[in-house]
Amino acid sequence: MRDGESLTVEYELLTDLYQLTMAQGYWESGQADMQACFHMYFRDYPFAGGYAVACGMAQLADLVDTFRFSESDIAYLASLDAPGGGKLFKQDFLDMLADFRLHVDIDAVVEGTIVFPHEPLVRVCGPILDCQIIETALLNCVNFQTLVATKAARVCAVAGAPVAEFGLRRSQGAFGGVWASRAAVVGGCASTSNVLAGKLFGLPVSGTHSHSWVMSFPDELTAFRAYAAAFPKNCVLLVDTYDVIEGVKNAITVGLEMRERGERMAGIRIDSGDLAWLAKTARRMLDEAGLCDCGIVLSNDLDEHTIKSIRDQGAKVDSWGVGTKLACAYDQPTLGGVYKLSATKVGEGSWTDCLKISETAAKLTVPGVLDVRRYYYDSGTIAGDMVFDCNTGVADAETIVDPSDDLRRKTLQGLRFETLLAPLARDGKTVLPSECRDALAAQQRCHAGLLTLDESQKRVLNAHTYPVGLERSLFERRHELAIKLRGLD
Amino acid sequence: MRDGESLTVEYELLTDLYQLTMAQGYWESGQADMQACFHMYFRDYPFAGGYAVACGMAQLADLVDTFRFSESDIAYLASLDAPGGGKLFKQDFLDMLADFRLHVDIDAVVEGTIVFPHEPLVRVCGPILDCQIIETALLNCVNFQTLVATKAARVCAVAGAPVAEFGLRRSQGAFGGVWASRAAVVGGCASTSNVLAGKLFGLPVSGTHSHSWVMSFPDELTAFRAYAAAFPKNCVLLVDTYDVIEGVKNAITVGLEMRERGERMAGIRIDSGDLAWLAKTARRMLDEAGLCDCGIVLSNDLDEHTIKSIRDQGAKVDSWGVGTKLACAYDQPTLGGVYKLSATKVGEGSWTDCLKISETAAKLTVPGVLDVRRYYYDSGTIAGDMVFDCNTGVADAETIVDPSDDLRRKTLQGLRFETLLAPLARDGKTVLPSECRDALAAQQRCHAGLLTLDESQKRVLNAHTYPVGLERSLFERRHELAIKLRGLD
Repeated sequence: MRDGESLTVEYELLTDLYQLTMAQGYWESGQADMQACFHMYFRDYPFAGGYAVACGMAQLADLVDTFRFSESDIAYLASLDAPGGGKLFKQDFLDMLADFRLHVDIDAVVEGTIVFPHEPLVRVCGPILDCQIIETALLNCVNFQTLVATKAARVCAVAGAPVAEFGLRRSQGAFGGVWASRAAVVGGCASTSNVLAGKLFGLPVSGTHSHSWVMSFPDELTAFRAYAAAFPKNCVLLVDTYDVIEGVKNAITVGLEMRERGERMAGIRIDSGDLAWLAKTARRMLDEAGLCDCGIVLSNDLDEHTIKSIRDQGAKVDSWGVGTKLACAYDQPTLGGVYKLSATKVGEGSWTDCLKISETAAKLTVPGVLDVRRYYYDSGTIAGDMVFDCNTGVADAETIVDPSDDLRRKTLQGLRFETLLAPLARDGKTVLPSECRDALAAQQRCHAGLLTLDESQKRVLNAHTYPVGLERSLFERRHELAIKLRGLD
Repeated sequence: MRDGESLTVEYELLTDLYQLTMAQGYWESGQADMQACFHMYFRDYPFAGGYAVACGMAQLADLVDTFRFSESDIAYLASLDAPGGGKLFKQDFLDMLADFRLHVDIDAVVEGTIVFPHEPLVRVCGPILDCQIIETALLNCVNFQTLVATKAARVCAVAGAPVAEFGLRRSQGAFGGVWASRAAVVGGCASTSNVLAGKLFGLPVSGTHSHSWVMSFPDELTAFRAYAAAFPKNCVLLVDTYDVIEGVKNAITVGLEMRERGERMAGIRIDSGDLAWLAKTARRMLDEAGLCDCGIVLSNDLDEHTIKSIRDQGAKVDSWGVGTKLACAYDQPTLGGVYKLSATKVGEGSWTDCLKISETAAKLTVPGVLDVRRYYYDSGTIAGDMVFDCNTGVADAETIVDPSDDLRRKTLQGLRFETLLAPLARDGKTVLPSECRDALAAQQRCHAGLLTLDESQKRVLNAHTYPVGLERSLFERRHELAIKLRGLD
């Protein structure tokens, strides 16, 4: 955020109760200072697509910057009764919380980075109590914003013209809307209608007018003339309050009047009806009236599929307004990212692997202290991502194994690579450079990242999956541990 | 909210840019003080169900209480450039905004009220500039919270046991999560895992522990013993970290140890696998061990459909944890409520009808200054809802006409009725009684309201639709106006 503005959120209580009760449990059982390592990742491509756009790390940095238990927080926690009688929290524990400061190291991919299932987006290492106490808020930030940034990238990829995000009225809560608008810009939207998001994050804001503007005047033509008089430099008229064709005729009248005054009508917006047919018809009417420089804006429950269909039908559209289906990621409203313990250590000892086993292979976790290498072909196209253990390193063959299918392997030896996780916090203090908190810089990063994908990965339907695997020795280590924990050896 | 706590949201900027540009337009064209009447309503039953639960009015009252443009807001707006050059906002207009106070009257259904498509949930009357400037934030509050409260009511209706909401990690943004938790309680949830929502709204909070608790100890039995020692009065053990059946055996060991110490293991939680089969198997194992008083908690992507299926298979479940699919209303993440201008007046004159026409009959708006009468049969079951104009009143026959189909009519004459809209604000100041802001009171209202529905309206699948219609003279007036505006007369 800029100018010291901030959204006041009490992140320290933005958590599931069990994180605090477990914290008390760790503290009481003497293992609150056990060192732990957690990773946040997701398991499935959102929207059945071929990639995701990482987002939410700027808010995560805010969380780290502001994480303190206030007096009123402590008083609230002290007031809670345990279900079986007595108080839920002990006074000594609350005294500790009152002075609590985070001591975690956080490494994360930078916002705007293209990411894939099964690779860590965030790694948190530190006392297990600290790691646990931020889990819920961390997931809340990264899950939602990564989801919306991804959706925006998909929409913008097919739009062929600027996309304005304007879903605030249908978004899930005030801050859902504010962060959704930011994530939409990270994913590629040219602007948002959300003024608060514009103020807080320095995003471009845009908008036209509503039907009620037209309805509040005696007739549509009068309403259009009043709007043109008020906004001669950015006059976009909404033409579908009563009848689109009549609306376009009225807009043309006003557009020609503006031209006589030396002004230019910027565009018309159509918000209902058969958008492809109406856009083509309106384009013809405007051109025939000599208003070739008047643009057409379309809106009304658009997403990547409807936009692609409208363009495939030959409509020429100059900008799109996308609301509901973007701001709440309508067709998949959660990412489903998880935060899993992967290793612990006591004192100066070495890390001990942890593993959560599940009925399905895809839900088996990955042990260790992890990072990701992204390999590139000489063409600049990405070749494969390797999840590896920072402490054991990468075996010479540089082979990755699909985490769910050990018969799917790929050798990446000799290819250029970069490492994805970068420091976000050290010992509980943020170290994220300011350019890594900026939404527009993240948008550029996303744009550049999309250029490294093969076209087949960017298809809206049935995208090509990308090779993400565990470094071979890590895969084998995980397999052996699973066998041991299940008692199969 | 209680104790003067508040979520700091700059509601004055939580808006689409076009509301502010239109406000400038109204102000410049001299009609900012024209009196207007807007209604918020939705058009379709959410989740293909038979009812909705109104929510979001407490936040709306917060909005009214705190709506002011700060110096930094004005400075931000002054910094915006118009797309065609120059500044977007004029200094005189910004000077007016700096001193702006709302002067609207707001009437709304009380939170927890059962509501249906096509009837106003909120009515806003006042200067058109004021009405317009709060539209986006009002829709954001009421759309989202009504959606989640409705989803919660559907889940709780089939659960047969307390439901704990714990979707914060997957909810859409921090405040999305906080208000979602409150709405979930309004809809019937017994508690939430969300500590901040608990603090702000006085909601019951609950939780167990996570897999990482188990993984951080050398083995599961040690982890369970440590948890029982830390929480002897509310010990619920999560048994699926490695293997559910082995986990239940370890929990039984600890439960029997607790019993020897005079304590009681409250329950076990199963969070993966085939929940119906595992719940029945675990119940048998616990009973055979003599732990008949140990409850079973189920969680993992539950919603009303999976809960009903699990119960239909005979599983005995003592409580449910419902997260993702409730907190973001997964199968329908927006309500789609709209806010439409229905009448204007100048000075002390009478109201002039406004109408927005659309290609589809269901999207035609309703003119006038509206309220809703709910009619009851003697049995206490609801008989029909009538949308009527407050100024023209109700014709003697008390007949309602389906807004989309004039052949569907119902006469409600002689039945007892109540009127649904109640004052929330007068001249920009909230007048909502404190009991109408309280989440638990709203929960009781919702519970009582659900008892007035016919069973057929509460079916999870293919619910019976309920008669909501326009008072007959209002229907005819609307029809005539539509004919006139389309130029068909």
